[in-house]
Amino acid sequence: MTAVGTMRVAVLRRAGDVVTQRRAVPRPGAGEVLVKVAAVGVCGSDTHYFDHGRIGRFVVDQPLVLGHEASGVIVELGPGVTGRQIGDRVSIEPGRPDFTCEQCLAGRYNLCPEMRFFATPPVDGAFAELVVVHQAMAHVVPDSVSDEAAALLEPLSVAVWACGKGAVGAGSRVLVTGAGAIGLLCVQVARALGATLIAVSDVNPARLAAASELGATDVIDARTAKLSELDWSPTVLLECSGHPPVVAEGIRALAPAGRAVLVGMGGDELPLPLSYVQEHEIEVTGTFRYANTWPTAIALVATGRVDLDRLVTSRHGLEQAPDALTAGRQDPAAIKAIVRPGS
Amino acid sequence: MTAVGTMRVAVLRRAGDVVTQRRAVPRPGAGEVLVKVAAVGVCGSDTHYFDHGRIGRFVVDQPLVLGHEASGVIVELGPGVTGRQIGDRVSIEPGRPDFTCEQCLAGRYNLCPEMRFFATPPVDGAFAELVVVHQAMAHVVPDSVSDEAAALLEPLSVAVWACGKGAVGAGSRVLVTGAGAIGLLCVQVARALGATLIAVSDVNPARLAAASELGATDVIDARTAKLSELDWSPTVLLECSGHPPVVAEGIRALAPAGRAVLVGMGGDELPLPLSYVQEHEIEVTGTFRYANTWPTAIALVATGRVDLDRLVTSRHGLEQAPDALTAGRQDPAAIKAIVRPGS
Amino acid sequence: MTAVGTMRVAVLRRAGDVVTQRRAVPRPGAGEVLVKVAAVGVCGSDTHYFDHGRIGRFVVDQPLVLGHEASGVIVELGPGVTGRQIGDRVSIEPGRPDFTCEQCLAGRYNLCPEMRFFATPPVDGAFAELVVVHQAMAHVVPDSVSDEAAALLEPLSVAVWACGKGAVGAGSRVLVTGAGAIGLLCVQVARALGATLIAVSDVNPARLAAASELGATDVIDARTAKLSELDWSPTVLLECSGHPPVVAEGIRALAPAGRAVLVGMGGDELPLPLSYVQEHEIEVTGTFRYANTWPTAIALVATGRVDLDRLVTSRHGLEQAPDALTAGRQDPAAIKAIVRPGS
Amino acid sequence: MTAVGTMRVAVLRRAGDVVTQRRAVPRPGAGEVLVKVAAVGVCGSDTHYFDHGRIGRFVVDQPLVLGHEASGVIVELGPGVTGRQIGDRVSIEPGRPDFTCEQCLAGRYNLCPEMRFFATPPVDGAFAELVVVHQAMAHVVPDSVSDEAAALLEPLSVAVWACGKGAVGAGSRVLVTGAGAIGLLCVQVARALGATLIAVSDVNPARLAAASELGATDVIDARTAKLSELDWSPTVLLECSGHPPVVAEGIRALAPAGRAVLVGMGGDELPLPLSYVQEHEIEVTGTFRYANTWPTAIALVATGRVDLDRLVTSRHGLEQAPDALTAGRQDPAAIKAIVRPGS
Repeated sequence: MTAVGTMRVAVLRRAGDVVTQRRAVPRPGAGEVLVKVAAVGVCGSDTHYFDHGRIGRFVVDQPLVLGHEASGVIVELGPGVTGRQIGDRVSIEPGRPDFTCEQCLAGRYNLCPEMRFFATPPVDGAFAELVVVHQAMAHVVPDSVSDEAAALLEPLSVAVWACGKGAVGAGSRVLVTGAGAIGLLCVQVARALGATLIAVSDVNPARLAAASELGATDVIDARTAKLSELDWSPTVLLECSGHPPVVAEGIRALAPAGRAVLVGMGGDELPLPLSYVQEHEIEVTGTFRYANTWPTAIALVATGRVDLDRLVTSRHGLEQAPDALTAGRQDPAAIKAIVRPGS
Repeated sequence: MTAVGTMRVAVLRRAGDVVTQRRAVPRPGAGEVLVKVAAVGVCGSDTHYFDHGRIGRFVVDQPLVLGHEASGVIVELGPGVTGRQIGDRVSIEPGRPDFTCEQCLAGRYNLCPEMRFFATPPVDGAFAELVVVHQAMAHVVPDSVSDEAAALLEPLSVAVWACGKGAVGAGSRVLVTGAGAIGLLCVQVARALGATLIAVSDVNPARLAAASELGATDVIDARTAKLSELDWSPTVLLECSGHPPVVAEGIRALAPAGRAVLVGMGGDELPLPLSYVQEHEIEVTGTFRYANTWPTAIALVATGRVDLDRLVTSRHGLEQAPDALTAGRQDPAAIKAIVRPGS
Repeated sequence: MTAVGTMRVAVLRRAGDVVTQRRAVPRPGAGEVLVKVAAVGVCGSDTHYFDHGRIGRFVVDQPLVLGHEASGVIVELGPGVTGRQIGDRVSIEPGRPDFTCEQCLAGRYNLCPEMRFFATPPVDGAFAELVVVHQAMAHVVPDSVSDEAAALLEPLSVAVWACGKGAVGAGSRVLVTGAGAIGLLCVQVARALGATLIAVSDVNPARLAAASELGATDVIDARTAKLSELDWSPTVLLECSGHPPVVAEGIRALAPAGRAVLVGMGGDELPLPLSYVQEHEIEVTGTFRYANTWPTAIALVATGRVDLDRLVTSRHGLEQAPDALTAGRQDPAAIKAIVRPGS
Repeated sequence: MTAVGTMRVAVLRRAGDVVTQRRAVPRPGAGEVLVKVAAVGVCGSDTHYFDHGRIGRFVVDQPLVLGHEASGVIVELGPGVTGRQIGDRVSIEPGRPDFTCEQCLAGRYNLCPEMRFFATPPVDGAFAELVVVHQAMAHVVPDSVSDEAAALLEPLSVAVWACGKGAVGAGSRVLVTGAGAIGLLCVQVARALGATLIAVSDVNPARLAAASELGATDVIDARTAKLSELDWSPTVLLECSGHPPVVAEGIRALAPAGRAVLVGMGGDELPLPLSYVQEHEIEVTGTFRYANTWPTAIALVATGRVDLDRLVTSRHGLEQAPDALTAGRQDPAAIKAIVRPGS
């Protein structure tokens, strides 16, 4: 089968302005596959582009298709594709590195300076009926993983990567600050990796309730309690709030030789508690997306260690993309909105 | 309270000859505590000393008290003990390193050349009503951990250490060769650490059934099947059989960059498949006991990730130590015999 | 030989007030040795205590003997000492951990909460004719290491530890900010570890000249040039200045996946460039003293890889301790003053 | 400039039969460059193919061009090449992985199952006037690196990789068994990485003399002495002899927690001293070629840490390839023969 003709896409023209348009179906090049999109998760960055028309130095100055958490089925193979079949159900890893630079060859393709990443100006994303990806970035999923879960392997990868950077393992005592989708996934992954104490802080009671349900052993309502009230000292901080004061407070809660992983974005400067970091030999590390996480993420979901379907709180057609992008504002219990371009 | 007078101990005088005797109660020195023993697990090494009167270069040439998997309650504090209380329920870590040699200071106290280890000639073990240990080796356990589970934190530590050496983590594919107590604990720990495929091989169907129950995803009856018949390639081999041909077969099954952890003892020489190890950059590592594993082991049991009580298949008084030492021979479904010196 | 009677010590009574007094010779306890002090280096922290009577929360509220970079010869053995001999020339590691806490057992004795460290209130230091140390902290040095070099193994240990935290190795590109004694030692150690590009920044031309002489490939006069003018990107930052703006500038100069090691102390809060750290996955780590560095430090000096004697710029008797403590203020080319209590 | 027409190549037709032929000049494809070959080192594997017509399962069943240690100058760029210029002097990394498989993406491209490696049937090597390589595998060298040194960055990469696997660093005590070209390079790299004791064993006095000259602190004439006679215990074994008994003897010499890196090839099975490996927690690892080593190797040579030119003991034209391939047999002091296709 060869897909031809046109397809529908949801395009962000400027802040607050998303419309559905028809575009030509893209053709897969050498090593690429064409994927019919089944489900796309809405990420906070999508909403940020929708609200503000930019994230930091990335500015939407031409029409942009949002969406980078996607799954679907392969409908066409480009030249030279040998590792995938038409009909394969796949989860899409939404970045295309150059594969051959120093960073890529070292296994850090997430730091490739030539990376082209979905829904990051000027690269279009997956709010579309069809997308092209390199076969190496189209990860086949087993039937036990639903379309929506396959889409959410992308945020799960963020959590897997963060836990790896934090060296979470057996007996780790983990503090997760911020219980959005990423924070809740960090809870699940930390638990799957053997963390035995997992505290979560947030200002949203619905999210704290979800954290408890998903494996947190302690929850901290940040409106009324301090991280220092925790009666054990974390060995790992997975910072998912992006609020600089929370980061500093979280670091000060760490045990000696603790690790702080900065996942949440927000602000350009962080007041690092220097003497605490020095006297306790704290390691602070940034994370940027992920590398080589899909096989692990798939295995965690397929074996029931992580529940992604539980996070889905609303579903929308392509034409309802604006509703999907603002679902979090309308429902305090919202965790993850899904766009289904085919419906 | 100060314990004085005499106590009962079970003494191995020579191969096959264990008798109960009375001995003076030992006194705790500086930094030491006296523990009233609640439960002691029987290890294969205890049985080997009982059967053969030696293990390799360690020869029972004077009466020896066996038993090194022990728990109890603190009944007396030596001078200068500040971190423990009389009445604390403790799991005993049965080695006493010198704490200040190069290996100890580097965090590898298991390799301390001055180590004095329970039930290893000429150091007596825990088949006794009371034993003395350094406070740092008397690990307080919460009420949720039973006396028998507290004793079995020792073999659990072997498994925690082995999984650490193997870098078992999220998405690891683990092959455990040998489903004795250590192998079964490796299954549980690997699962708790995020391993998503866990195969176990053994020649004993009862043990393979236990492996399945405790988390193995695949079992291999080594009487009829080969490790190469597994339809996925392990990233980690936890070798618990001690049979050289099994080791070599297990290594040949590993994925590129796989790790082989040699836990099982047996024979002095192993035919290593050299070109396979080179071409796939396999890492092969020995393990010797454990270091710094008790906090993790306690946390895994207290949070229900690992079930130790399930492994207990018989219980014996001190006078029945010979029965405990031979329980494995009498019942093919036997996993772990427990001696309870107080009963 | 048994040392008895009294000895001279230099005592800091309050800021700016150091006097020589006589005190009773201390007696070595179990596992301890008595060392006749040959040489003591003056550290910036000694000078800071002398100038201000405190460092952060450590306040000199009773007379304090300064000095923690010391060497000497063993003149008496305490009970149970087996690993050292009277007459051994030793370099003193100036901390005494408890050896048995969780941090010590894990090989991180530098983070021991019970650490007693020389010249840190209320623990006396080495501006004395004789001091007692644990035998494990009295490291025997070969004849090829001078008394002064043996004393300076302490700051060398700081540099060895920092380079270890930074994972400096073959082909590392290192930026050292601050060319005091520690910075100059970092240059030498980085070079010994295979770093092939080593830049050093400072505001003191004499120090930059010393850096060039000791192995720096690039020097940056921070009065007129910026770190960003370097024409290569460092993989490791060894921050030895303690000036927060320099730290931030140094971090922003790092290559992707670079590591920043915070050695210099100064101020309680550091403005961390968050988005740079995240997008480049920079690892930032504090260092606190060192652990297990002496054998390496001795080997580096004994084999001529690191030259410690070159750093000595003045020598003083015990009575001239105030001169030693202020030598850096009087001579811009001063690097390291030495106190020789025996002269 | 576009190279057209024909070129000379030296072809191995069967064991012992190498002839010079003319072949069409290859054309660089997308991302590839055409390199005019300046120098090619002769490796033991080239000689083995020449002598035996095979290495293990790799059989020369069609004409094969040998040579995989090569340098030259770029004379033509294929489509899409942006990172290299005509005229660039380059060292050739002689493997072409697929760049996108699981192993490549993880930074282990040396384990890529689709690797096409020079001079390994059926892939031709560099005994030719011109060769095509991917631009990512054509590493630009500075003028300070000679053509012959640029060719020998390949065996240097083997040594860099081996030292990395062995975690050689400051204060490492290294034992190198076998002082051929790889062993001698291991000596130099270990020294450059901070190893302070380096022993080398061999049966060839000329090689031992070269080892001493290049940085070995101890040499062991294996005809008359045993590795156990060394008066210090190595922390790292770099096994470059490929003789199983030497491997076992080397492992038994290691300090606790030592690492054994198996570089030398020879035989399919190695008698591993199991109980020694277990009781001392020795890590044994295979190495297979290298990954991401060229930048480090170039930096080590350009900064004078490693001397490659010193290893060259004979030079030959393309027509004299058979002499180059047998140089080692004719001169016991031979280390590295070079073929210069242009002369």
